[in-house]
Amino acid sequence: MGSKNSCHLNKIEHVGIAVKDLEASNLLFEKLLGRSHYKVEEVLSEGVKTSFFQTGESKIELLQATSEDSPIARFLERKGEGVHHIAFAVDDIRMEINRLKKEGFTILNEEPQRGADNKLVVFVHPKSSNGVLVELCQELPK
Amino acid sequence: MGSKNSCHLNKIEHVGIAVKDLEASNLLFEKLLGRSHYKVEEVLSEGVKTSFFQTGESKIELLQATSEDSPIARFLERKGEGVHHIAFAVDDIRMEINRLKKEGFTILNEEPQRGADNKLVVFVHPKSSNGVLVELCQELPK
Repeated sequence: MGSKNSCHLNKIEHVGIAVKDLEASNLLFEKLLGRSHYKVEEVLSEGVKTSFFQTGESKIELLQATSEDSPIARFLERKGEGVHHIAFAVDDIRMEINRLKKEGFTILNEEPQRGADNKLVVFVHPKSSNGVLVELCQELPK
Repeated sequence: MGSKNSCHLNKIEHVGIAVKDLEASNLLFEKLLGRSHYKVEEVLSEGVKTSFFQTGESKIELLQATSEDSPIARFLERKGEGVHHIAFAVDDIRMEINRLKKEGFTILNEEPQRGADNKLVVFVHPKSSNGVLVELCQELPK
């Protein structure tokens, strides 16, 4: 137990930004970042359409709701456009879930789910992490 | 003009998170990230006390207000704790200011200011960037 604890949340994998109109925001972020998005992906289970921009080792993920009961639709209604979550890369998502639960964090989904960009993901409730919705993501073998 | 435009916003330099109590949040983020903050710095001109955690090539910056009229105090009042800004590293901040103004973005301070962590910084108004307060920062020579 716990002997390989030197790297937990290895790096910022991406920052997720909720937007109303993905096409318009793709153009806006292309101007802002000085480069184009490299892919668009729809995650049916989450009711979102996403696009990704590479910036160094991290990505900017834009998220548009594709259904009214999607978490992104609810976020836009409550807070408007803006930063939705910070995602950190982890090597072993189940080990991190156990570690964070012991540390007192509230994990939103016990069982990791398939997210965008070939990842297993879980979320930490923002109430337990200073108002920040934190995503952990582990790359799946291709 | 503009021949070296291949890299504009090079990487996520840091994500800034507004917190009420820096000491308590340092402990919380130490548990979350699995590592300690590596420095604390006060920026008198901004009315903030900050701490930094390294995560890969990017940092998490926690910001606590030290005066009632600090931008962080106003943010906490309006929105509560959470993500305050995303900062991108740039090589030439004045070139980027000019480029972004031409692209239609609103720059909050025309003249770059001295920020935390040995940087020259400017902010892009969130109204022009999908609700995201964007910081550009250029490392100063040490």
